[in-house]
Amino acid sequence: MMNYPEIIEKELMNCLPQGDERNCLLEKCLVDSMEYSLKAGGKRIRPTLVMLFSKACGGSEESALPFACGIEMIHTYSLIHDDLPCMDDDDLRRGKPSNHKVFGEDIALLAGDALLTHAFSTVLSERAISLVGADRAVKCGKILADLAGMSGMVGGQVIDLISEGKKVPIETISEMHMKKTGALLAAACMMGAVCGGADENTVNYAREYGINLGLAFQIMDDILDVTSSEEALGKPIGSDKDNEKSTFVTLLGLDKCYNLVNEYTEKAINSLKNINANTDELKDIALKLSERKN
Amino acid sequence: MMNYPEIIEKELMNCLPQGDERNCLLEKCLVDSMEYSLKAGGKRIRPTLVMLFSKACGGSEESALPFACGIEMIHTYSLIHDDLPCMDDDDLRRGKPSNHKVFGEDIALLAGDALLTHAFSTVLSERAISLVGADRAVKCGKILADLAGMSGMVGGQVIDLISEGKKVPIETISEMHMKKTGALLAAACMMGAVCGGADENTVNYAREYGINLGLAFQIMDDILDVTSSEEALGKPIGSDKDNEKSTFVTLLGLDKCYNLVNEYTEKAINSLKNINANTDELKDIALKLSERKN
Repeated sequence: MMNYPEIIEKELMNCLPQGDERNCLLEKCLVDSMEYSLKAGGKRIRPTLVMLFSKACGGSEESALPFACGIEMIHTYSLIHDDLPCMDDDDLRRGKPSNHKVFGEDIALLAGDALLTHAFSTVLSERAISLVGADRAVKCGKILADLAGMSGMVGGQVIDLISEGKKVPIETISEMHMKKTGALLAAACMMGAVCGGADENTVNYAREYGINLGLAFQIMDDILDVTSSEEALGKPIGSDKDNEKSTFVTLLGLDKCYNLVNEYTEKAINSLKNINANTDELKDIALKLSERKN
Repeated sequence: MMNYPEIIEKELMNCLPQGDERNCLLEKCLVDSMEYSLKAGGKRIRPTLVMLFSKACGGSEESALPFACGIEMIHTYSLIHDDLPCMDDDDLRRGKPSNHKVFGEDIALLAGDALLTHAFSTVLSERAISLVGADRAVKCGKILADLAGMSGMVGGQVIDLISEGKKVPIETISEMHMKKTGALLAAACMMGAVCGGADENTVNYAREYGINLGLAFQIMDDILDVTSSEEALGKPIGSDKDNEKSTFVTLLGLDKCYNLVNEYTEKAINSLKNINANTDELKDIALKLSERKN
């Protein structure tokens, strides 16, 4: 298996002006701020999914790289904006000072805007088009915009905001997770499938895999908030209970939640069976995420 | 001449879920917030330029509508984010409470993000592609992303931020205006030209027109801040001096600034001479903007 996080981080840096080209920019601090958060890393799940689905659907991992970078830029911008004082007001992100703590709120806001915009520059770039053709690049750009926007990720964040401190039904929590997390994971899988030349049916199976992976992932998050330790998780535990947040665990209890994680993971894996190629790595990702401890 | 602002506002509303479709959304307030700012209007210069350039370059005004809406969404998001407390902290926009005053800072931030994202959904939509074809839609999306992002509008906003309260050279002011205002005006003209089927040379002339229009517009803004009245302008005058802001007027004086407005307006109009079509309306726009009193 390729070292996806390393390849992706290298490619992300290539998407920004470097060296002298950056140093002579009046707005240099903007690029520094974008790079700071892009480098802060994490598991790089979304871009890895883009590359794996491209390979599984008959394309190559390399030809999916601009699309992998695009989706990671969207994910990164959403974290920067999420951490702002008017949102979650988080001073730390993955153990490092959050973007606005280093660059100030104004630059952090604009770095988020610039990353969101640059995702589309990257997905519609000459390089992207030379790798997969204009038709597939347009399809990928449309998928990304639809699933990252008001009916997808941003919509999910709004549902999260307005549910705060309220007792909400399980359907609301489910819809929130499907939009807030599932939509972008689905976009990653669908973009990869499109890059690889998949037909519409296969793109739909890729979508199903992403949505179910997202649900399993979020329920596991709720479980870990109760069962893990601060050391293992790298962030305070019990925060959901402290915030009187309705979660899968507070509404359904731990046992049922473990079952649901397995159920959604199985659904994700089942949707892979409809893809006529080796999908072992995608199966592995679903299983690993369902067994994770942090 | 068509009533562009009316056509554009109607089309913008069609880009958002309406009626029952919106009312049953959990995230309804997000769409309300996006609509609030989209409706707040203004001159609709950018989308009008998209439509006029499309016509001047051999296309139709109607086929440019999705692209006109896309650029207005980008312009609108930038105003919402600009007004936020961590940026300009403006309570009013065009005489109405700014978005975050009505919907709260968190929803305003997300409405900006959603508008920015929805611009690309619109430009890459099936409708857009059916009107101008995938190749032109990709080109338009790329122009929009490049000129709205870190090397364009957002970059210009950063130059503005870091120049605040400092004495900066005229070259910095010029670059700031070219990026902050000129880039998006240029994008409007270029997208229109691409929609209409213009060749690369003509797209470049469209770009020149937009950049020069932007410079003339901003220098006129600096002039009006000194010479206009609060009633005519609809906002406090003398704010640049109060903020010790370096502007074209503080650096060059009024006389030289009037000359520069004429010079850039003439440059804009001259670049139209290279387009083999009736460009009278575009000439009119440039002249009217150079003579405006508010």
